[in-house]
Amino acid sequence: MPTRYRTIRHVQFRDTDAAGIAHFSVFFQYMEEAEHEFLRHLGMSVMTRDDEGVISWPRVSATCEFQGAVKFEDVLDIEVEVLRRGEKSVTYRFTFLHENRPVAEGQITAVCCRLDAKGPPRSISIPAWITEKFEAGDEA
Amino acid sequence: MPTRYRTIRHVQFRDTDAAGIAHFSVFFQYMEEAEHEFLRHLGMSVMTRDDEGVISWPRVSATCEFQGAVKFEDVLDIEVEVLRRGEKSVTYRFTFLHENRPVAEGQITAVCCRLDAKGPPRSISIPAWITEKFEAGDEA
Amino acid sequence: MPTRYRTIRHVQFRDTDAAGIAHFSVFFQYMEEAEHEFLRHLGMSVMTRDDEGVISWPRVSATCEFQGAVKFEDVLDIEVEVLRRGEKSVTYRFTFLHENRPVAEGQITAVCCRLDAKGPPRSISIPAWITEKFEAGDEA
Amino acid sequence: MPTRYRTIRHVQFRDTDAAGIAHFSVFFQYMEEAEHEFLRHLGMSVMTRDDEGVISWPRVSATCEFQGAVKFEDVLDIEVEVLRRGEKSVTYRFTFLHENRPVAEGQITAVCCRLDAKGPPRSISIPAWITEKFEAGDEA
Repeated sequence: MPTRYRTIRHVQFRDTDAAGIAHFSVFFQYMEEAEHEFLRHLGMSVMTRDDEGVISWPRVSATCEFQGAVKFEDVLDIEVEVLRRGEKSVTYRFTFLHENRPVAEGQITAVCCRLDAKGPPRSISIPAWITEKFEAGDEA
Repeated sequence: MPTRYRTIRHVQFRDTDAAGIAHFSVFFQYMEEAEHEFLRHLGMSVMTRDDEGVISWPRVSATCEFQGAVKFEDVLDIEVEVLRRGEKSVTYRFTFLHENRPVAEGQITAVCCRLDAKGPPRSISIPAWITEKFEAGDEA
Repeated sequence: MPTRYRTIRHVQFRDTDAAGIAHFSVFFQYMEEAEHEFLRHLGMSVMTRDDEGVISWPRVSATCEFQGAVKFEDVLDIEVEVLRRGEKSVTYRFTFLHENRPVAEGQITAVCCRLDAKGPPRSISIPAWITEKFEAGDEA
Repeated sequence: MPTRYRTIRHVQFRDTDAAGIAHFSVFFQYMEEAEHEFLRHLGMSVMTRDDEGVISWPRVSATCEFQGAVKFEDVLDIEVEVLRRGEKSVTYRFTFLHENRPVAEGQITAVCCRLDAKGPPRSISIPAWITEKFEAGDEA
């Protein structure tokens, strides 16, 4: 049974635009914030320093469908779910509701990478200790 | 022959993150900026006031695939193209290159709407004068 | 005794830059978010619709001194205080600590205005019902 | 005679808020973008890698006074000037006009620092090669 993690976000004034509603691009920030909160909940971080350097999760794909508009000070109920877990990548699904009304649904696929000050990020197999954290979350 | 509009963007310092690369969410801002520049190029704006009020283009879908990372001060070559033009919506495709290397490819679908201070945005058929601007662009 | 309102903020990944620390400009967003949270705590909003239209608080001045850097996932303790309350404006002071270490101190001066779709914002005397909310906060 | 560097910025849709005007916090982003463009104009970057590591310019102070509101698609004329150059820091002044009307005036003080993956930024005397670039700008 895959973990479903729930959190909330208030629409900030800075998130709105001259059309009077939350700008579509902030939903990608909300998704990432919810993902990172979920990882902390599982006892991890999106960026970890180990003996060999830094492991992080660059994104290869991000999508969002918008079903309704929200305004300044609206409260968003956000649900994060692991949709797919591959050898090197994880796909998260995010659902946004406002007062039980669907607002948006998105997905982010992130690839486990080693970061290096010099070259580009290099994809790696997800380390066992990370897989275990996800699995512990699934069982909880 | 559909219009292809080209523009560039410098990766700003604020666009980068602690992984040392442009954050994925800023590509959605770059896409929108390129779309708006394209509309101005065609003699329109994404937000127009007419006798009946305001016409604007809320987004129903936004996606981006990321093929490579870019850093502070990298220059992005961005191409905008109208992929589909329906009765009430337009889908744009965006291609990002850095030094001829693919960086990202995205799509935004926007719906022609009347905005109102009170209710939510209300979709309308794209007015003839807007269709003409797109068609003039196609012929150019 | 002026109200002191306390809140916290996690440094988000999007808030960091390629120098590995929270970007200076996000402190202005944190300040505003704390101000708005404070106003909600007092039973108000930074943007209110009444019979005559909309009352809001455009900023005439914003400053921040930076005393230390913070990183992704650091927790900021933020304190908001009303430093001055004039006939038409309010000045807030914001103090940022991380693990009891000073990080930043800022001020925002906002002017009470009527907003109008057509003209620029127009400053007004702070309405009595708003002054009463601030005073109730001072006494609490 | 200190260099004055001029550039422009279009107010982007994402820069506006539900009050229909450019959000105050984006002026700090505009200031930094103008500063970085100015440094490139002088043949430098705000972030330089040399034999010993990375030199960058964390901010110790940022202020802005707002004199008028601007809307989506307004064009800002921005002027950057070196107000003070100390042994370890530089203070820039920024002036924003829209159609010759004053919009905002701000200052940023940045300190020359060595960055290090481990510790906090460490202030250093501005290297001679950087001072020469500023002086060449003054004489131009």
